[in-house]
Amino acid sequence: MAQYRMLLEYDGTEYHGWQLQPDTRTLQGVLETALATVLRHPVRVAASGRTDAGVHALGQVATFRTDRPVDPRDLRRSVNALTPPDLAVKEIAPAAESFDVRRHATARVYEYRIWTEPWRSAFWHRFTWHVPRPLDVAAMRFAAAALVGEHDFSAFRAADCEADRPVRRVVSSGFTAAEGLCVYRVEANAFLKHMVRAIVGTMVEVGTGRRPAEDVARVLASRSRMRAGRTAPPHGLVLMSVRYG
Amino acid sequence: MAQYRMLLEYDGTEYHGWQLQPDTRTLQGVLETALATVLRHPVRVAASGRTDAGVHALGQVATFRTDRPVDPRDLRRSVNALTPPDLAVKEIAPAAESFDVRRHATARVYEYRIWTEPWRSAFWHRFTWHVPRPLDVAAMRFAAAALVGEHDFSAFRAADCEADRPVRRVVSSGFTAAEGLCVYRVEANAFLKHMVRAIVGTMVEVGTGRRPAEDVARVLASRSRMRAGRTAPPHGLVLMSVRYG
Repeated sequence: MAQYRMLLEYDGTEYHGWQLQPDTRTLQGVLETALATVLRHPVRVAASGRTDAGVHALGQVATFRTDRPVDPRDLRRSVNALTPPDLAVKEIAPAAESFDVRRHATARVYEYRIWTEPWRSAFWHRFTWHVPRPLDVAAMRFAAAALVGEHDFSAFRAADCEADRPVRRVVSSGFTAAEGLCVYRVEANAFLKHMVRAIVGTMVEVGTGRRPAEDVARVLASRSRMRAGRTAPPHGLVLMSVRYG
Repeated sequence: MAQYRMLLEYDGTEYHGWQLQPDTRTLQGVLETALATVLRHPVRVAASGRTDAGVHALGQVATFRTDRPVDPRDLRRSVNALTPPDLAVKEIAPAAESFDVRRHATARVYEYRIWTEPWRSAFWHRFTWHVPRPLDVAAMRFAAAALVGEHDFSAFRAADCEADRPVRRVVSSGFTAAEGLCVYRVEANAFLKHMVRAIVGTMVEVGTGRRPAEDVARVLASRSRMRAGRTAPPHGLVLMSVRYG
């Protein structure tokens, strides 16, 4: 069975997350159905990581296997003709037999978008968390920088996170802001469950002045989820890219 | 009756255009209903111009009148609480009694977005026309520049356009392209019905090599709709801003 690698883009608004579930619209389920229809055999799709319900992707990576002869461009066209407009296969390419899409990923990049105008954006509402107040971006940048490096991120981890070890290496962590849109961009070797959303929830408390910027380093050191802010909603989050090797 | 001016943003995907129609979801209808609910009297809303079904706006301007005492920020908040997420009031401000939102507009800026990757974008599909082939942007820029100036735009006018005179003054007309997105931006004192979409349809023929770039000046001079390309679909079009005085 030859293995193939796909680059995926999706608007997660109307999906119950990545992972296959019975009687529910999930990204894995919709993709497996489309691939099985084209390839005429059951197909299992694996991703670099699960995205939660409502989370989007511009660069999710996923793999599948088939023993049918496949022209990657033809297959992409056929699959995109069967998937709904909120899910697109950007590329399909052959992958090595030994390639493991989850274990071999060396880094993931996420962005989280916050809309700060007093009015809700009609264009961006599917992709932003609406926080209708001015944010102190300089303070948020200072706080975000404190997360760079290898740390125990237990303070920013969901209660039901199943990862064995809570240590992750954050390569970059910063904010940009322009025209009502404040964007948090973070790259790490891997992420714990709800980690980006817990970080963003905490950062917004810094941005609105409810929490001093210096506090974030203390929260991280405490390894206590109770000390961090609330988890930001999923729809502001986008998996931008996954790096290999 | 005091007059007020609103700045509006909308995703036009699920509206049958601006203009009020019975038993149909239109932008004017949804806004008039929301304003009437808050102000507790019937309200008529006028816009700088009608946008077609499926066309979006980031900077539509509209007016209404009321004799109720109005705090603009409170009213904005109340109206936005009643409008669906695909329509937002960005600003409300008092306007002069004599202000005519349509006649006093001195310029309109539109953008038209074309998605040129072979795969359909899951993020941009509501706001782009998918033309899955590389476009010759240099040729399109040359052709677009030929429209600048005061001209009879009959060649780029819908058959049922009701304007008395077909002469319009185009101030700027050009293309930018980056990462799969090709954007046409045009500013004019005013536009004829379907004018931007007829221009874009013609420009895409230039971009794909079906029509030489020099032909666009000849089409314009011919004043014949038969000579121009087909009308591009509405969902790539956004009214960016309206200028006054």
